[in-house]
Amino acid sequence: MNAEIIAVGSELLLGQIANTNAQFLSQQLAELGINVYFHTVVGDNVQRLEQTVKIAQTRADLIIFTGGLGPTKDDVTKETIARLLQRELVMDEEALRSIEAYYARTKRTMTENNKKQALVLTGAEVLKNEYGMAPGMALTVNDVTYMLLPGPPKEMMPMFIRYGRPFLLGKLQRHERIESRVLRFFGIGESQLETEIEDLIDRQSNPTIAPLAGDGEVTLRITAKHASAVEAKKLLDEAEQAIVRRVGQYLYGYNDDTLFSKVIERLKKYGKTIAAAESLTGGRFAAELTAIPGASQTVKGGVVCYTNEVKERVLSIPASVLKTDGAVSGQCAKLLAEHVRTLCQADIGVSFTGVAGPDPLEGKPAGTVYIGVAVAGHETEVHSLTLVGDRETIRTRTIKYGCFAVLKRLTAVL
Amino acid sequence: MNAEIIAVGSELLLGQIANTNAQFLSQQLAELGINVYFHTVVGDNVQRLEQTVKIAQTRADLIIFTGGLGPTKDDVTKETIARLLQRELVMDEEALRSIEAYYARTKRTMTENNKKQALVLTGAEVLKNEYGMAPGMALTVNDVTYMLLPGPPKEMMPMFIRYGRPFLLGKLQRHERIESRVLRFFGIGESQLETEIEDLIDRQSNPTIAPLAGDGEVTLRITAKHASAVEAKKLLDEAEQAIVRRVGQYLYGYNDDTLFSKVIERLKKYGKTIAAAESLTGGRFAAELTAIPGASQTVKGGVVCYTNEVKERVLSIPASVLKTDGAVSGQCAKLLAEHVRTLCQADIGVSFTGVAGPDPLEGKPAGTVYIGVAVAGHETEVHSLTLVGDRETIRTRTIKYGCFAVLKRLTAVL
Repeated sequence: MNAEIIAVGSELLLGQIANTNAQFLSQQLAELGINVYFHTVVGDNVQRLEQTVKIAQTRADLIIFTGGLGPTKDDVTKETIARLLQRELVMDEEALRSIEAYYARTKRTMTENNKKQALVLTGAEVLKNEYGMAPGMALTVNDVTYMLLPGPPKEMMPMFIRYGRPFLLGKLQRHERIESRVLRFFGIGESQLETEIEDLIDRQSNPTIAPLAGDGEVTLRITAKHASAVEAKKLLDEAEQAIVRRVGQYLYGYNDDTLFSKVIERLKKYGKTIAAAESLTGGRFAAELTAIPGASQTVKGGVVCYTNEVKERVLSIPASVLKTDGAVSGQCAKLLAEHVRTLCQADIGVSFTGVAGPDPLEGKPAGTVYIGVAVAGHETEVHSLTLVGDRETIRTRTIKYGCFAVLKRLTAVL
Repeated sequence: MNAEIIAVGSELLLGQIANTNAQFLSQQLAELGINVYFHTVVGDNVQRLEQTVKIAQTRADLIIFTGGLGPTKDDVTKETIARLLQRELVMDEEALRSIEAYYARTKRTMTENNKKQALVLTGAEVLKNEYGMAPGMALTVNDVTYMLLPGPPKEMMPMFIRYGRPFLLGKLQRHERIESRVLRFFGIGESQLETEIEDLIDRQSNPTIAPLAGDGEVTLRITAKHASAVEAKKLLDEAEQAIVRRVGQYLYGYNDDTLFSKVIERLKKYGKTIAAAESLTGGRFAAELTAIPGASQTVKGGVVCYTNEVKERVLSIPASVLKTDGAVSGQCAKLLAEHVRTLCQADIGVSFTGVAGPDPLEGKPAGTVYIGVAVAGHETEVHSLTLVGDRETIRTRTIKYGCFAVLKRLTAVL
């Protein structure tokens, strides 16, 4: 089976957004072992969309569309495909009820054009939209499978995972299994990691090992093909062991793990709680941790001590420390971590103080960062970092480093 | 002139990266008034690339390629186009010297395959690569203009701006200006907005009005074409005024404004400071505000009061309120906003308390949210929201609503 992904939306052609839907779907299809040969983006224009579909029909067995399922006149995907396949559009009662319920729940008045969203292609399997209104659909006509998904990634992604993927798996009836595993590293650069395991990468064709860097992290995707799932897993395990022998100290997780989810997971496991004092990160560390459902068992809260005033008043940092050592100092980081721990009555206190930039602060350049990790009954650890990059990069690296430091500290003391 | 952007690279079809090059070039071409009708992504495969170019030749006057200009066997763009256009590839001496100099500078040995990068299409204008090795090129054959750019964004973007754009401007010899303006709305859905101004959208062809929704916001892009920049601006102003008469109460900004940048801008303008008490949002409101450089003049800090314990201990919420009204209540939101304002000695205190989900809390369903806005010397305002979506969506909508509420409150009381 080979696929083409067609995104419909003039906003893509105007450059207002990037086609991240195609990226997501490509990853998903790669995991299913489906080759993607083309991505196409076309505007909200019936004639050009028709032309695009006709071309795709000559070269793909699977055509996935994103976008153009909404309520407005610009949304033409469904109608165009209905015409090309000579299929009627019929009202899907369940989808209609779900749209009406959506409006009732949000206490807004449903305008008439919203009903259009509940129209589906005759004979298509309807893919439920659990995060929006327009349902997706999938059907096979003349050996070509068409899947229509909504444009907003927040609706499209869960719909594909939950309903689109199983539909395709049913179509595939594959015998060869493709298994892959992502190893996640922090604290090592891509080129260093690649140098350390270069011979492993070069030597192997099954499994393959593919490095990818981004946002201060490096991942290795190991992919194995085998008729037996057990054998495929064994291939993955062997490759992983060889890698871990070289660079295991930087490995923090697998697949969809994040540094934040690992912190929450580890805290839950040990039954420990955390609190954070955040100066340069302005609340982002706590925000990332609390983005994870169930974080309330482990995250007590924290203080965004963006100004020295709040550091003094709320976190009792002595004026003398702010004056002598400065807010951007190891001493300040140490006290912030200890005080926020006590204030919030948590087992672990973390602090972030430094210069996010672009301007220097207290004569220290952007990228100067101190992280404190205080654990009840143990000596407080202070990390001093020198980061490069813009404000956003420095803040992101800082909170990720904070996670890594907490994970290491938990392993050391618990 | 209408364009197609073709990205060449299997890494895009595997979903390892998103096609941000097409986004960047689309923005650039939109500014030049060149319509982009298609984006295509194709792998490092000669046959499929040939097919892609042949299709593009039938429907575009300008074809811009990104990727496939490097030294390896996978890089096939140049060779394929040379064959299709029956043009020889010739060594560009300046590009070759620049590649050799690059190796000398980085003290590495140049392998023979790197010379391939200095080959260019006969008769093409060579576009210098100031951030890498492979030069770009541009030429017109049978009324179709071909522009070949390297794949890495850090090489492609400056090359396009410095050499590609002037090349196109020379081709265009345009007299007509294209001006566009984005209006940003909050608190109104896309379909409602479109219903309110449907006649304006339908009636107009210059300027055009294009709605786009995302993340709880709606934008309208107004685009005008005119020989005179002054007249184009006038067309935009008139369209804007007509829109504002209908839905002005939801308009919060223009172009690259965000709700967060508007809050910071407005606070700076009035010389006021803000502090936040964040329960369900876990610090994200403060994190977004402090992501903006120079926020320290206006953002004092705040408390992440994720647990009731922190609400009581740090923000002095009476146990009786937590017991009787609950943490998820208007009364708690009111007190949180007032107390965080006093604690951080800010002019404005904002609070967020509610249920981010997925599970209910205190018997209240996910999406139940209270926002408090306390301004010194004024009555505290409490907003009660019923949001739908996943945890991430509910948190995002909550902090955006908080911004909108603060902006409205500032307008009302200052």
